[in-house]
Amino acid sequence: MSNKLTSRTEDYSKWYNELVGRADLAEHSDVRGCMIIKPYGFAIWENMKDVLDLKFKETGHSNAYFPLFIPKSFLSKEANHVDGFAKECAVVTHYRLKNGENGEGVIVDPDAKLEEELIVRPTSETIIWNSYKNWIQSYRDLPILINQWANVVRWEMRTRLFLRTTEFLWQEGHTAHATKAEAIEEAEKMLDVYTDFVENYMAMPVIRGYKSESERFAGADETYCIEAMMQDGKALQAGTSHFLGQNFAKAFDVKYADKEGKLEHVWATSWGVSTRLMGALIMTHSDDEGLVLPPKIAPLHVVIVPIYKTDEERKAIGEKADELIKQFKSLGIRVKFDDDDNRRPGWKFAEYEMKGVPVRIAIGPRDLAAGNVELARRDTKEKTVVSAEGLDVYVKQLLDDIQSSLLNKAKAFRKANIHTVDTYEDFKKQLEEKGGFFLVHWDGTKETEEKIKQETQATIRCIPLDAPIEEGVCMVTGKPSTKRVIIAKAY
Amino acid sequence: MSNKLTSRTEDYSKWYNELVGRADLAEHSDVRGCMIIKPYGFAIWENMKDVLDLKFKETGHSNAYFPLFIPKSFLSKEANHVDGFAKECAVVTHYRLKNGENGEGVIVDPDAKLEEELIVRPTSETIIWNSYKNWIQSYRDLPILINQWANVVRWEMRTRLFLRTTEFLWQEGHTAHATKAEAIEEAEKMLDVYTDFVENYMAMPVIRGYKSESERFAGADETYCIEAMMQDGKALQAGTSHFLGQNFAKAFDVKYADKEGKLEHVWATSWGVSTRLMGALIMTHSDDEGLVLPPKIAPLHVVIVPIYKTDEERKAIGEKADELIKQFKSLGIRVKFDDDDNRRPGWKFAEYEMKGVPVRIAIGPRDLAAGNVELARRDTKEKTVVSAEGLDVYVKQLLDDIQSSLLNKAKAFRKANIHTVDTYEDFKKQLEEKGGFFLVHWDGTKETEEKIKQETQATIRCIPLDAPIEEGVCMVTGKPSTKRVIIAKAY
Repeated sequence: MSNKLTSRTEDYSKWYNELVGRADLAEHSDVRGCMIIKPYGFAIWENMKDVLDLKFKETGHSNAYFPLFIPKSFLSKEANHVDGFAKECAVVTHYRLKNGENGEGVIVDPDAKLEEELIVRPTSETIIWNSYKNWIQSYRDLPILINQWANVVRWEMRTRLFLRTTEFLWQEGHTAHATKAEAIEEAEKMLDVYTDFVENYMAMPVIRGYKSESERFAGADETYCIEAMMQDGKALQAGTSHFLGQNFAKAFDVKYADKEGKLEHVWATSWGVSTRLMGALIMTHSDDEGLVLPPKIAPLHVVIVPIYKTDEERKAIGEKADELIKQFKSLGIRVKFDDDDNRRPGWKFAEYEMKGVPVRIAIGPRDLAAGNVELARRDTKEKTVVSAEGLDVYVKQLLDDIQSSLLNKAKAFRKANIHTVDTYEDFKKQLEEKGGFFLVHWDGTKETEEKIKQETQATIRCIPLDAPIEEGVCMVTGKPSTKRVIIAKAY
Repeated sequence: MSNKLTSRTEDYSKWYNELVGRADLAEHSDVRGCMIIKPYGFAIWENMKDVLDLKFKETGHSNAYFPLFIPKSFLSKEANHVDGFAKECAVVTHYRLKNGENGEGVIVDPDAKLEEELIVRPTSETIIWNSYKNWIQSYRDLPILINQWANVVRWEMRTRLFLRTTEFLWQEGHTAHATKAEAIEEAEKMLDVYTDFVENYMAMPVIRGYKSESERFAGADETYCIEAMMQDGKALQAGTSHFLGQNFAKAFDVKYADKEGKLEHVWATSWGVSTRLMGALIMTHSDDEGLVLPPKIAPLHVVIVPIYKTDEERKAIGEKADELIKQFKSLGIRVKFDDDDNRRPGWKFAEYEMKGVPVRIAIGPRDLAAGNVELARRDTKEKTVVSAEGLDVYVKQLLDDIQSSLLNKAKAFRKANIHTVDTYEDFKKQLEEKGGFFLVHWDGTKETEEKIKQETQATIRCIPLDAPIEEGVCMVTGKPSTKRVIIAKAY
């Protein structure tokens, strides 16, 4: 059996890093801050991508592809945008290497300097709106509903696999609309799509809200977000959808003629989720034995492990497994039969637990004789002996149960860790003692927000969309407030 | 009706450029050499990608993701590789911008210079083999069968949409094996996968062969390729699969212990196809009215255009269309009903011809009354009136016919344009007069190859795998040769 992970209670961060490595999800590369997503990790991401892509298409969006490089001057056109992104970007300055004259190997050819430097895209609003300018003349050209799956680069000084890497994979939707109302509707619709995906596929409950001004996307008039709670009580922003107003249309001079021929600036949204969701997934469900995966996005649903001593037993179990596999596949259950003779069953059990395969089926000679199998759920670790007859339908149902059980468990955890507090003293005390999310009154100013952040490292995660109107006073300044916001430490 | 394209006979290159724009496939961006793949073009690429991805998985490969950036020193480790790729690469030298002090906007922060420059990947052998070094210890770790879908950058001075762009999309497979035989088998298997895909989905016949030494991938011991003939008689390399020997294993010191514990260098392959295939697709099938698409990769199979004068007619046709659409969809036929009232039928006919929708169905009041529809094939432009009864099955069959008919037509064209010649004079004359592919004897030397290239611009496209042994003499030098090679001008 393989070595145990550091436990979550002992060192949550160490547990996470070990798990990402041991479950074979990703690793650091020798390129500073860039990760390698390994095949098993990538298979989970592909499943997530497939579901999202379908949902984007069902809501009328098409995929396209825009350049990796952004001319430096484009980035500068929207004032807030450049402030947000210029600090952390990879800059291409040359387009050729050559052999050095002193035998030092290849060097950058000084004669191949670009007239204008190119930025490796940190996000694509500028390069896309520079194109939309040519695509939009009249109201007939609107809306434009485009998504792109791409890699982006933001130079990060401190990186963690999936959670914060210099290069990451994401999708970015960029839409153009004739009216403000339609753009806001789009931004909200995509927040719904993300919520549906994260809750019903990733089994992660989220709080839907909008960001305070200082936490907004650089260039947005409003940033909608979904915030999830990790098992250490910290928040993770699982997706954002931005209402960009006319900011990029003005920066790139994109106007359309309405039905009366009057020229108006176009309204915009952008929205994205990234490989960060992989980090969120891990930290929501996994345990000290390794990864726990919701069936809907698990690369494998079921692993069948044969327990045998003789070749004869192995053969008989193999025949039974073939039969089961056929039945499973016809129900869309993704199954693997692991009869690798070089590994013992105990090693395999630990391995598939580490990799979060939702259901494990073990078949030994006695099970076979009795027409049974031993079945183990990864999430609860319950073991039961069940009949091999009708096992496909049983497992199909079980996978549904696991899916909803994971969501319910995460909901219960979140409920137990959202605290309503009214004084700053209470907030600071509880934040340190038990962590979690805090529903507090805030006076709506940047100054108070900054003070809280400086003094506690907690930030305003969002102003929940469904927060009830409630008269109160800011826990820090005592000024009036009408709604509670969510404050938490965050990834 | 929209304006006509320049005809192929008038100016093939202009025809191509106009078609790419008018069919809404792609356009040049304001970033030198980088293209924007528009939604319709991207939908075709997505269909191609989906088929290939499935074939890769069926042959045991998994997807993963490796960094965009390659440290300059990695590129230098394999001597031939760096010679091939250092000349044309994007170099990242800095990681931050800042506000200039003289109001000139953002500038590159000179304090944020990288210690080692990073190259935007032109291909990923080096970054991947640097990882494989850590993944491979024993024969048990082999084979590694990984593919990655990614963007790559090769700085090109002269670019053409899809055919040659600075940034392009591709897949790159990178496999590691214990034996030479197994690596060669893998390289050949992937050539088979490409052949199957290109011939049976893209309806493009290809010649399978291997490259002469000077046309090999930089770092390969053998480059297998498939070569397709465009309608102007020029060749386009539609996919390559490289047997890399132990070159990268030696460069990155990747060894495995065999069953006896002896250390051996690992054997490698890599293989790829790119968005270049989009250019090949266009130039193989399309005509002066626009794009022609093989049904298997067409985003839309059928467009239904209503012909009406009154609202009542429009409604009745709409109801019939709904019924047909339901039937089509149940057979997996991708269909669109275009009842946009702002456009005339004639405009729509031209538009969908331009976009290469394989089947057009027009329904007018008289058709409706007679229980018929008018059906037009995009490839042959044949029009027929057929019964609306059983139309789904009829169209399904028709799509299969179109698919095979396109392949047969391309095969016939190729056959008519492959010439066997024996003298250099004849070759030069026929190359100029009629173009196409030439089967010639070559003495196997770089010098002769270079002479032909310099004097005629034609290159050795491949040494066909199925070329019969045939005693002959080199058309240029008269030295002995045992096989004919394919020579042609190429994209």
